Amino acid sequence: MRRAPGANQCVMSNFADRLVAAVRAKGNPVCVGLDPRFDLLPSRIRQHCLRTHGASARAVAAAFLEFNRAIIDAVADLVPVCKPQIAFYEEFGAEGVRAFDETVRYAHARGLLVISDAKRGDIGSTAEAYARAHLCDDRDEVVGRGFDADAVTVNPYLGRDSLAPFLALCRDRGRGVFILVRTSNPGAGDLQDLASEGRPVYERVAEMVRDLGGPAGPTGFNDVGAVVGATYPQQARRLREIMPDTLFLVPGYGAQGAGATDAVAGFRADGLGGVVNSSRGLIFAYREEPYASRFGEAKFAEAARAAAADMAEALCNALR
Amino acid sequence: MRRAPGANQCVMSNFADRLVAAVRAKGNPVCVGLDPRFDLLPSRIRQHCLRTHGASARAVAAAFLEFNRAIIDAVADLVPVCKPQIAFYEEFGAEGVRAFDETVRYAHARGLLVISDAKRGDIGSTAEAYARAHLCDDRDEVVGRGFDADAVTVNPYLGRDSLAPFLALCRDRGRGVFILVRTSNPGAGDLQDLASEGRPVYERVAEMVRDLGGPAGPTGFNDVGAVVGATYPQQARRLREIMPDTLFLVPGYGAQGAGATDAVAGFRADGLGGVVNSSRGLIFAYREEPYASRFGEAKFAEAARAAAADMAEALCNALR
Repeated sequence: MRRAPGANQCVMSNFADRLVAAVRAKGNPVCVGLDPRFDLLPSRIRQHCLRTHGASARAVAAAFLEFNRAIIDAVADLVPVCKPQIAFYEEFGAEGVRAFDETVRYAHARGLLVISDAKRGDIGSTAEAYARAHLCDDRDEVVGRGFDADAVTVNPYLGRDSLAPFLALCRDRGRGVFILVRTSNPGAGDLQDLASEGRPVYERVAEMVRDLGGPAGPTGFNDVGAVVGATYPQQARRLREIMPDTLFLVPGYGAQGAGATDAVAGFRADGLGGVVNSSRGLIFAYREEPYASRFGEAKFAEAARAAAADMAEALCNALR
Repeated sequence: MRRAPGANQCVMSNFADRLVAAVRAKGNPVCVGLDPRFDLLPSRIRQHCLRTHGASARAVAAAFLEFNRAIIDAVADLVPVCKPQIAFYEEFGAEGVRAFDETVRYAHARGLLVISDAKRGDIGSTAEAYARAHLCDDRDEVVGRGFDADAVTVNPYLGRDSLAPFLALCRDRGRGVFILVRTSNPGAGDLQDLASEGRPVYERVAEMVRDLGGPAGPTGFNDVGAVVGATYPQQARRLREIMPDTLFLVPGYGAQGAGATDAVAGFRADGLGGVVNSSRGLIFAYREEPYASRFGEAKFAEAARAAAADMAEALCNALR
């Protein structure tokens, strides 16, 4: 039913090497979070899609895709990677999921790497289905249409055997995972900070991530990454000690309150270490100062580009 | 954009009371897991859908829906609830998700309660989007099309504030959640069994679930449930002590190795306590003895019904 793993991708390098190469090529570790919300889109896009499709999930999906394409066009030469959060698409059912799928493909066509922010976690054959859903590309095969992201975020609560199907697919197809270790929200500590044998649960998870990672590639990183929130810089430094070869996906910059210095606290001395995500702060920059008065709604994509450039500069300064 | 919460559901009783009423009405706690896999479907359905739709995700989605409808028709008068696992649908992108959506609506039309097995977990506005995606029904509104399940499974790793949006929606709309506490897989213990202050992490999660649950309804249960695997009966008994008013969703019966006595280990002395799920063991009963020789592929739905009846009898005997 599905193509043999790696059949047309046997020469592809691993995800970590591709991500590091992209960060180097663009000169910054900015990840653009593609988290559209209908109410926050420019009114021109909303009105156009409502006129074309009526008041329906299809209109929302069309608006998301039109908006995302404009953002991607505006930032594709500037940043290495984007991260659509599937919840905002799933909210609109099959139509929303189609917009997610098309967003991933459009970002790829414009040369961006794509992290599917899905935070999936399940067992056995269910985990295999999620891994294929997010990391496979079988459009040209008999059946099946995975989203074909370069990496996916996953949740560790169900243990190592729940992660194994993702890791197997990563190795076959040059894809990556980012396992939740320390998240950026206020309640992150409820479970992650519980003390176990003198250290918090999230450090035990970090040890599991390190052990699952296997050997580092040419750039010094392996394909099993970690989500490490920007809002907890002290923990990020400690987590880098535990996971020296692990790429970090760092959420929480900007709208969630973390600054550039906090965001790169877990990066290595050589300036590498992962990518830093911002969603609202970039894609809806046109709604907030200083970008609102410089660009306004009509130039929302230029506002996103300016905000991404400012974020890139701030991160690069913090890394010096 | 969305209807005010509870606008047309203000008189709906809470999920726990509806589930207990359904269990009492059907006389058993069987949950039918609707986890279709194309390779395992009857060849007549596969061939029919491939002929109609070509070799595509659409053919798979059509086959899933045709299969599910036949299973639902066969068991709707016998069991209280079904549980589609969204991973198997998500694997086929937007077409698969549409089949999931239609499955939920068909099950409702036949009088079954529906648990969306999604194990979602995220923060802030993202968690709100997931909650609306799985627990809202806004088909008749301006935009939006939630799956409209009666309950959804969620992952606790991100803490209380990641669960709050689900709980808020549950209370507004009479819906439920089942929070992962102790899962049924071999690796469940990697994180869940870590010792914290002399007891395992999953017991700390159980305390959180209990505290989030609020007051029990008329039937003695509240709307914040727990996933407690059938493969760990000793833990289930201990978890019932911690969570006396919590409905358990019990996976792991049958194909995962647990028997009826293990599956109801966490039920209360009054015979109530939640629902026990079986997926492969019921929907693909036609492929295995003793059902294969009694029914065969042509009567796959009757085989599922017979297997569900046998499971109901075994659980009821174990509860006596």
